[in-house]
Amino acid sequence: MKKIDVTEAIFAIKKDRELTWEAISDAIGMSIVWTTSACLGMNSFTEEAADKLIKYLDLPVDSKATLLENPTKEWDKAVPQDPLIYRLYEVVGVYGDTLKEVIQEKFGDGIMSAIDFTMDVDKQEDPKGDRVIVTLNGKFLPYKAW
Amino acid sequence: MKKIDVTEAIFAIKKDRELTWEAISDAIGMSIVWTTSACLGMNSFTEEAADKLIKYLDLPVDSKATLLENPTKEWDKAVPQDPLIYRLYEVVGVYGDTLKEVIQEKFGDGIMSAIDFTMDVDKQEDPKGDRVIVTLNGKFLPYKAW
Amino acid sequence: MKKIDVTEAIFAIKKDRELTWEAISDAIGMSIVWTTSACLGMNSFTEEAADKLIKYLDLPVDSKATLLENPTKEWDKAVPQDPLIYRLYEVVGVYGDTLKEVIQEKFGDGIMSAIDFTMDVDKQEDPKGDRVIVTLNGKFLPYKAW
Amino acid sequence: MKKIDVTEAIFAIKKDRELTWEAISDAIGMSIVWTTSACLGMNSFTEEAADKLIKYLDLPVDSKATLLENPTKEWDKAVPQDPLIYRLYEVVGVYGDTLKEVIQEKFGDGIMSAIDFTMDVDKQEDPKGDRVIVTLNGKFLPYKAW
Amino acid sequence: MKKIDVTEAIFAIKKDRELTWEAISDAIGMSIVWTTSACLGMNSFTEEAADKLIKYLDLPVDSKATLLENPTKEWDKAVPQDPLIYRLYEVVGVYGDTLKEVIQEKFGDGIMSAIDFTMDVDKQEDPKGDRVIVTLNGKFLPYKAW
Amino acid sequence: MKKIDVTEAIFAIKKDRELTWEAISDAIGMSIVWTTSACLGMNSFTEEAADKLIKYLDLPVDSKATLLENPTKEWDKAVPQDPLIYRLYEVVGVYGDTLKEVIQEKFGDGIMSAIDFTMDVDKQEDPKGDRVIVTLNGKFLPYKAW
Amino acid sequence: MKKIDVTEAIFAIKKDRELTWEAISDAIGMSIVWTTSACLGMNSFTEEAADKLIKYLDLPVDSKATLLENPTKEWDKAVPQDPLIYRLYEVVGVYGDTLKEVIQEKFGDGIMSAIDFTMDVDKQEDPKGDRVIVTLNGKFLPYKAW
Amino acid sequence: MKKIDVTEAIFAIKKDRELTWEAISDAIGMSIVWTTSACLGMNSFTEEAADKLIKYLDLPVDSKATLLENPTKEWDKAVPQDPLIYRLYEVVGVYGDTLKEVIQEKFGDGIMSAIDFTMDVDKQEDPKGDRVIVTLNGKFLPYKAW
Amino acid sequence: MKKIDVTEAIFAIKKDRELTWEAISDAIGMSIVWTTSACLGMNSFTEEAADKLIKYLDLPVDSKATLLENPTKEWDKAVPQDPLIYRLYEVVGVYGDTLKEVIQEKFGDGIMSAIDFTMDVDKQEDPKGDRVIVTLNGKFLPYKAW
Amino acid sequence: MKKIDVTEAIFAIKKDRELTWEAISDAIGMSIVWTTSACLGMNSFTEEAADKLIKYLDLPVDSKATLLENPTKEWDKAVPQDPLIYRLYEVVGVYGDTLKEVIQEKFGDGIMSAIDFTMDVDKQEDPKGDRVIVTLNGKFLPYKAW
Repeated sequence: MKKIDVTEAIFAIKKDRELTWEAISDAIGMSIVWTTSACLGMNSFTEEAADKLIKYLDLPVDSKATLLENPTKEWDKAVPQDPLIYRLYEVVGVYGDTLKEVIQEKFGDGIMSAIDFTMDVDKQEDPKGDRVIVTLNGKFLPYKAW
Repeated sequence: MKKIDVTEAIFAIKKDRELTWEAISDAIGMSIVWTTSACLGMNSFTEEAADKLIKYLDLPVDSKATLLENPTKEWDKAVPQDPLIYRLYEVVGVYGDTLKEVIQEKFGDGIMSAIDFTMDVDKQEDPKGDRVIVTLNGKFLPYKAW
Repeated sequence: MKKIDVTEAIFAIKKDRELTWEAISDAIGMSIVWTTSACLGMNSFTEEAADKLIKYLDLPVDSKATLLENPTKEWDKAVPQDPLIYRLYEVVGVYGDTLKEVIQEKFGDGIMSAIDFTMDVDKQEDPKGDRVIVTLNGKFLPYKAW
Repeated sequence: MKKIDVTEAIFAIKKDRELTWEAISDAIGMSIVWTTSACLGMNSFTEEAADKLIKYLDLPVDSKATLLENPTKEWDKAVPQDPLIYRLYEVVGVYGDTLKEVIQEKFGDGIMSAIDFTMDVDKQEDPKGDRVIVTLNGKFLPYKAW
Repeated sequence: MKKIDVTEAIFAIKKDRELTWEAISDAIGMSIVWTTSACLGMNSFTEEAADKLIKYLDLPVDSKATLLENPTKEWDKAVPQDPLIYRLYEVVGVYGDTLKEVIQEKFGDGIMSAIDFTMDVDKQEDPKGDRVIVTLNGKFLPYKAW
Repeated sequence: MKKIDVTEAIFAIKKDRELTWEAISDAIGMSIVWTTSACLGMNSFTEEAADKLIKYLDLPVDSKATLLENPTKEWDKAVPQDPLIYRLYEVVGVYGDTLKEVIQEKFGDGIMSAIDFTMDVDKQEDPKGDRVIVTLNGKFLPYKAW
Repeated sequence: MKKIDVTEAIFAIKKDRELTWEAISDAIGMSIVWTTSACLGMNSFTEEAADKLIKYLDLPVDSKATLLENPTKEWDKAVPQDPLIYRLYEVVGVYGDTLKEVIQEKFGDGIMSAIDFTMDVDKQEDPKGDRVIVTLNGKFLPYKAW
Repeated sequence: MKKIDVTEAIFAIKKDRELTWEAISDAIGMSIVWTTSACLGMNSFTEEAADKLIKYLDLPVDSKATLLENPTKEWDKAVPQDPLIYRLYEVVGVYGDTLKEVIQEKFGDGIMSAIDFTMDVDKQEDPKGDRVIVTLNGKFLPYKAW
Repeated sequence: MKKIDVTEAIFAIKKDRELTWEAISDAIGMSIVWTTSACLGMNSFTEEAADKLIKYLDLPVDSKATLLENPTKEWDKAVPQDPLIYRLYEVVGVYGDTLKEVIQEKFGDGIMSAIDFTMDVDKQEDPKGDRVIVTLNGKFLPYKAW
Repeated sequence: MKKIDVTEAIFAIKKDRELTWEAISDAIGMSIVWTTSACLGMNSFTEEAADKLIKYLDLPVDSKATLLENPTKEWDKAVPQDPLIYRLYEVVGVYGDTLKEVIQEKFGDGIMSAIDFTMDVDKQEDPKGDRVIVTLNGKFLPYKAW
């Protein structure tokens, strides 16, 4: 089985049993964002999480090796087009230099890691329209001089 | 004066007086992220913020009209290259579909606005290496059927 | 079933029964533009519209879940080539800066939403050649300062 | 003088005298959209409109020949980035095939001209947020068989 | 049947019976260029031409609806590579600005339509090497001011 | 002097004396298309044509060497944007494969030269709207087998 | 059969019988470079060469029509990546302007034809490492003035 | 002085004294292709060649250090447009796979070096039209296994 | 069999028997980097290495000819996206000019060969986090003057 | 002063005094690769290194603030063209997947940091041609699950 096959199996079961990502992530004891990304094939499962997922969703046994595999992380288009994803790309374009100024003022010359990194999505209820809260949390890595 | 001229004037004064974006944003009573982006020419100032900025930095009087102007928001390359900015682009690439799944599960079919939108940067101290916390806060906009 | 499968089923039935988009949209009580876009898989159906469509076209029952799914909105080429679509792209290119000037003069700094958005197509009869009237109607969203 | 020089002169006078595009278009008796696009150098002036504009804005006499010149219509990036303009591009991407289906169902095989074409922008007041109305009006051109 | 299926059927029969585009276009009473383009799926047939083509080539009956369909006109690469086609692209690149100067000097500000358009190919015999004559014939469309 | 300097000088004199390309080409005894392209710097002048042009327009003497220089033929964008030029590009895209079929049916395997090549533009008056006639005339070059 | 099918058949037989391109080209009496390119589907066979090839390799009879067909010459990527092919591309990039200077100094304004063109590959033995000799031989085509 | 400054100085003197690349290369005792490329700034001069060139052309003394500098070899466009250079690019595209087959059949797995490389241009007189002979001569480099 | 088929067979056996690249490379007596690249189809096997690999992994006999074949070396995207590979691309972007300065200062004008080339990966244990050591070893090739 | 101004000043002094990068790096007590990259504006100086550099090269005092500034790291072209740099890009393309396999086999799922990273260049003398040794040394960063 390839990553894509396991992903399609998960989607089919999720649709059939009318599950949510929240329920799946609760069942394996991980966050909803990480769980979804790993089910989409963009992160490798830990052994424990894989076992729980297979049990919860009744996935075939040989999907375990696939869930543990290190993914090749790639995306389709250099500039994304789906409006939800494009808006995030636009934020990076419009505020990229700003974030560089502010992060480096607070931390020194370096970057926010996208590897030692977690992300969360929350809902803030608001009478004028609910708000989406996305929180990125990455380790600061200073540039090295040698 | 064009946006770029005012931006260069602000940078020169900031360097000369050894100011920080934090000090500048405190002086005008706005957040550090928004202030930096507006000084970089990516947002238009409110009249009040423009007046305070001009006073605090002793900018020339005719910079006011420029600060109030609506910017054309553009960026240099479709795929950013500076490592700090690229990591954010990579997050959008790797987690774009995940965010779409999670946000639409929580909110229904629609997007997070990048216009009715705010963003903050915080520092989380950590003995294993400090962490950068970036928080995006955008209004949820449901797609309309007609 | 995937979005594309339902779209192909709709096209086959439409061709076979010699239906028009106008007839289909009348049957489900929605506008012709929205109905066509949703049948093409670019918008998600409301439950009511999905039920009516399935009934009117005798679509298979399991197409309902697919019609309700949130689509990933993507298109094939960054610069469209079909002459009808290219002319619209050309209008955006030639008049983009003009629309920015005029809309922001009338409304302030902000954008026309493409999410809280409707569109209509009308025919204006004219002895020198009929005219196509396309009307875009989007909520104005002001940029936020914070 | 080149188109760009006249455009910059118009912008400087407009800013200095605090004029609006609406005032300028009223003064020359043309629509606001066309006037703005012609001032931005994307359309050629008629002799009458050029004379009125020069008189109203006190432009130099030799700007007339430039205003009458046929422009080369080009834009900076294949995919626009300013959020206001991008949303229009997105509409073309998301609804391009839909417009092709609907226009050709109503008119037959052919296109909406972007040359024999006019466009208007209106403001629709709405307590839930004002709405931008953009109306495209282009002659239908049927494909020729020979 | 899709456009591509009918095109492949036509090519197979043409090869099998050793027909030429000239013979096919004579049989349906249309020009060779238009006939070839319509057989390649780049133009829609008139009902009369479709009936004659189906009869002449013994195409299946259900190909008629497909021949009448409005095609989506797209091509593979932004810059063509086959040497015959590239040379035409090169002509547009090398002489594009020249044609703009000459056409607009003769006709005023506007364009040559590619929709209300016909094209012919002729052979000019020449002892130093025969010459290809390609004639483009398009309606002049003046830009509209409004 | 560089090609671009001579081109700008020619444009300035042409505008100043209100000349046309037709008048200039008559004065040097060459076709209007070739003359315009050579004045735009896309073809090298023959010595005779250069002498006549310099005399007719009172160009500086040292422009002669520049007029005789072999140009580097390049254009700005892979896909042209000005509507007049784009329509020609579109014709190549839509009819490229058709022209390959028709030319190679008439001449055998080979191409139409864009070097041993001439082009003309004519005006065909028509009560329903004048028509632009562009005629390409290129030597057929058969592929060589060796 | 399509070009690609015949190419695959030739490769299979060549591998199976352990033939070389040299042997195949000797058998059909053509050069190795042309023979290889024609077997790869990038040139059309003459009738005589096709007959000899079919006989030598025992290709199916209906491959003849395919071998005679005029190919559409296209390649996969605008910038080639295989190191052997990239080096040739690099030579064009590094020495392109040089070749233009030298060829036009020797021949006048014009180009080297890639159609009336032959190419050969030879091996020059050398104790310091054998050398590859590639010889391009194309007819000079002078630009035409008209 | 930068490479481009020395190149422009050489071109100016060459034009002024009506020199040829052949004369210049004879004067410095190197081939015409290498000399031209080095004068265009695409190769570094040996000390001896630099001294001879400076003497022959009366270049300023400080141009020597510039002539000796290692150039950064870059070109303007991924796909060249000038017809003479494009034809060479086309040869690489059309015959790239063929050259890979033939060179690797003759030499084994490896490439032709573009660094340990020379190139020559010759004129072959021919009553049917003179021919350009371009000879590439590069060391064969076998891939290493380790 | 094609390269991709043999690669897939190797991956399946490796996964099934839980082998490592290190074990496979030890079995055939070659380095781990070269072995992996050759198994991925990016290098051709020597006869000896192919025999050992087939024996060790029980590959089908006819895979030998495929392992010996010269690969076409291509990759999917001009800018890689997987984070591990992108970081290497970023190193080339950030340090490319630096490496040019340093290598050419140490060796003279020329390049590091990517053909006469070996590469190794080592693990350096470190309490603050283990470090990856990648060593590139390529022959210096001086540019030739002729 | 901007980064580019300081870089140009350093280059001018280095050329004038005939210094090497090795001498400069020795003078400031840092490695040659890091020193060169920082002088090229691709890394920020530590205060100590900046002081030493200014003293050693007699740079103007106000260059210090510029040397300390955090650079924006960008490069000119997505695919580099200078042969020395291209070969490194080619190594990433050809061996990218291999490095992913080998590094992740040795370290687990994660990447080699390009931030907590050093690089060295050495010369290995060899009678068959000296060899360039480039050593990359980056911290391994494991992906985080959350």
